[in-house]
Amino acid sequence: MTDKQPISTEAYKGVRDFYPNELRKRLYLERMMKKTVEAFGYEAVDASIIEPAELYDAKSGDELAGEQSYRFTDRGDREVMLRPEMTPTIARMVAAQAKSLSFPVRWYSISNVFRYERPQRGRLREHWQLNVDLLGAADVLADTEVISVAYNLMKNLGAEEDDYVIRISSRSLFADFCDEVLQVKDDTYTTLAHLIDKKNKIDKDSFNGAVHNLLSDDKADQLLTFLSINDVGQMTESYPMLAKPLNNLRKLFSNLHDREIANAVFDPNLIRGIAYYTGIVFEIFDTHPQNNRSLFGGGRYDNLMEVFGVDQVQAVGFGAGDVTLADFMDTHELWPELAGSLDVDICLIDTAKHSGFGYKIASLLREAKMNARVNISSKNIGTQLKNADKDGANYVIVVGDNEIKSKKVTIKELSTGEEATVKKADITDFLTSKE
Amino acid sequence: MTDKQPISTEAYKGVRDFYPNELRKRLYLERMMKKTVEAFGYEAVDASIIEPAELYDAKSGDELAGEQSYRFTDRGDREVMLRPEMTPTIARMVAAQAKSLSFPVRWYSISNVFRYERPQRGRLREHWQLNVDLLGAADVLADTEVISVAYNLMKNLGAEEDDYVIRISSRSLFADFCDEVLQVKDDTYTTLAHLIDKKNKIDKDSFNGAVHNLLSDDKADQLLTFLSINDVGQMTESYPMLAKPLNNLRKLFSNLHDREIANAVFDPNLIRGIAYYTGIVFEIFDTHPQNNRSLFGGGRYDNLMEVFGVDQVQAVGFGAGDVTLADFMDTHELWPELAGSLDVDICLIDTAKHSGFGYKIASLLREAKMNARVNISSKNIGTQLKNADKDGANYVIVVGDNEIKSKKVTIKELSTGEEATVKKADITDFLTSKE
Repeated sequence: MTDKQPISTEAYKGVRDFYPNELRKRLYLERMMKKTVEAFGYEAVDASIIEPAELYDAKSGDELAGEQSYRFTDRGDREVMLRPEMTPTIARMVAAQAKSLSFPVRWYSISNVFRYERPQRGRLREHWQLNVDLLGAADVLADTEVISVAYNLMKNLGAEEDDYVIRISSRSLFADFCDEVLQVKDDTYTTLAHLIDKKNKIDKDSFNGAVHNLLSDDKADQLLTFLSINDVGQMTESYPMLAKPLNNLRKLFSNLHDREIANAVFDPNLIRGIAYYTGIVFEIFDTHPQNNRSLFGGGRYDNLMEVFGVDQVQAVGFGAGDVTLADFMDTHELWPELAGSLDVDICLIDTAKHSGFGYKIASLLREAKMNARVNISSKNIGTQLKNADKDGANYVIVVGDNEIKSKKVTIKELSTGEEATVKKADITDFLTSKE
Repeated sequence: MTDKQPISTEAYKGVRDFYPNELRKRLYLERMMKKTVEAFGYEAVDASIIEPAELYDAKSGDELAGEQSYRFTDRGDREVMLRPEMTPTIARMVAAQAKSLSFPVRWYSISNVFRYERPQRGRLREHWQLNVDLLGAADVLADTEVISVAYNLMKNLGAEEDDYVIRISSRSLFADFCDEVLQVKDDTYTTLAHLIDKKNKIDKDSFNGAVHNLLSDDKADQLLTFLSINDVGQMTESYPMLAKPLNNLRKLFSNLHDREIANAVFDPNLIRGIAYYTGIVFEIFDTHPQNNRSLFGGGRYDNLMEVFGVDQVQAVGFGAGDVTLADFMDTHELWPELAGSLDVDICLIDTAKHSGFGYKIASLLREAKMNARVNISSKNIGTQLKNADKDGANYVIVVGDNEIKSKKVTIKELSTGEEATVKKADITDFLTSKE
């Protein structure tokens, strides 16, 4: 022991230590993400968590680039940030190789992001996030595909259609409505967007009051009426001047219907906070009363590449974080049994005397593509067997003098308790045949 | 286009953007790492890149905790660091659950680490690192196992024994030599250790001169003699007072011989910079004249847990970074062909007219566990076919009016140029049978 005050064993506030049991869950989500997106032909990309801060100042919005940002100056006086989201990085990478890439480009990443927030349910300072981006395709088929990927992710995670709903709207619909119907200016547009984005978190009267504070009574009523229409056809009848974005939404819903996706709904209240969206926006919303919240979402961001001074690259994508997905898995009890990868645990009666024989068996097993470990703890056999069980080994082999003399071992299958005595030379064949 | 100055598309200095081709290499290394360590029964763990800075101040040494550190203050006035190495995190996590873990614990992680250095060959500001740790085992069997894991990693990467050498020494051997033979104090010991650690980077005369500056001529000669002995037996004869660490080394080499590891050598010049090592240290050293350098290494660090105020946990481990390993793979030309995961690319003569049919085929293929994408670029078919080839698709299907009318498609295998016309309902059976 040192004389100094001991250092705390706690992780930094709002981040997680992933012990084997916890990491298995995150890695399960990551495997399902990878399986889902690769089925659609998306290729994995990655980048550093450190980015120049200017990347976010242009388009990420005040929260992410400002008060929630992990921003510091490096030893070479560069202003940098830990990325709060992946999309600007993807845009930067596409812009850097815009001339040589063959569009449309389908990319995904599974990366961590940081936001300085008060840690709470569904929200931590660091989470891992699947990002899916389809770049260089203007057609609503691209929006359809990206939403299909999100739908298939939920399906691969075991969700049924009534476990969640896909809420869809269009940022250009809202912008055109503000422009052509309300005829409000940029500032009011932004304030309204923020207000509607927070609508779920405040009560109806406060929301209505805030709208009336911002707009004339006439316009306030117009806005509240607009937000109450949850049918694209009906909205098209009411607002012929919004035909263009509504036509796009109509095609999207028709495509989703063709893909047999039945839980997509139109919701003009959906804004999605991020500043760079330009068209369709969507989110996956948990319908369970105990977890009634947005799980993840995305949208179209056709103009993000312009900050790099390259020609427009149309883009649509989404990001799905592991923290909200894990809450969804918990709430709907969708986790499968997640075992470790240990096939055989080899226990030794006497570490010094029996380890050579133990390691030889382990080596044979590994050559036959099985995972094997040797217990070199010198603890008594009872404890060793208990640990084999606790650590999820499928089989256990105890090595002592008799085993070495007879060149035979007893293999015990822990799930059934069945035992078989097998010649050393036949161990791998015996176990391979059981798989 | 905006009026503002465009934002740079460059990544932050000294870190990498991983486009699909580059990421495939890193992920290949990671797959081999995972395969290797899981075969030995190691379980994956992970943690955040942000750690309290005090974690490194105690034991990581001046470079990592000081001039090379990414250190900043968060918005809550906490002094934090981006981890420069994984071992202190592992130690912290073990210490936090020391009472409930069943030792020995075998953990690995594949995580990124940051060091503020001048970027150069084999050294960047961020790299990904396999960390392997065997905790709670005092016996030299543990050291043997960890070195075997490193050996098997090299083997799984395709390395032959003469492609590299495993250099081994013991920090306690060097400490005992300084204490009992040279009889020098702590400061001189540390200075000598640093000097020997840098020996490879300076010429022989400068090294000898520096040694003579630090020590009396008599002691300097003693040190140079000690460093010239590369045989454990011979050293034991010369220094009976160093019997304890030498005995341990002798057992280690005997064990490695039993494991049929033939490229391990004793080298008393090996120090390994990290401050917390207490026993055996080793490194994997590339023997190729064009890349004659240390690839990675590790050692025993029995006392690191004490900074957390918990009982001693014996520990031995190593860290292997992706940058030096990639240089090794390049130098020895060991990379396998790393293709993408796209099975079928579906090209459309007319996006609007043919995408529905195209997406239906894609959906059938995905249900049969194949990866398929639909080209919605509206580019001409020649360009679409070129992209299918460039992106590594195995098969391509072109959809036009004829295919929809006849409900038959032509499937082309891109590697052979072979074509087959298949009914829509038979596509998945046809392709599954070809695998």
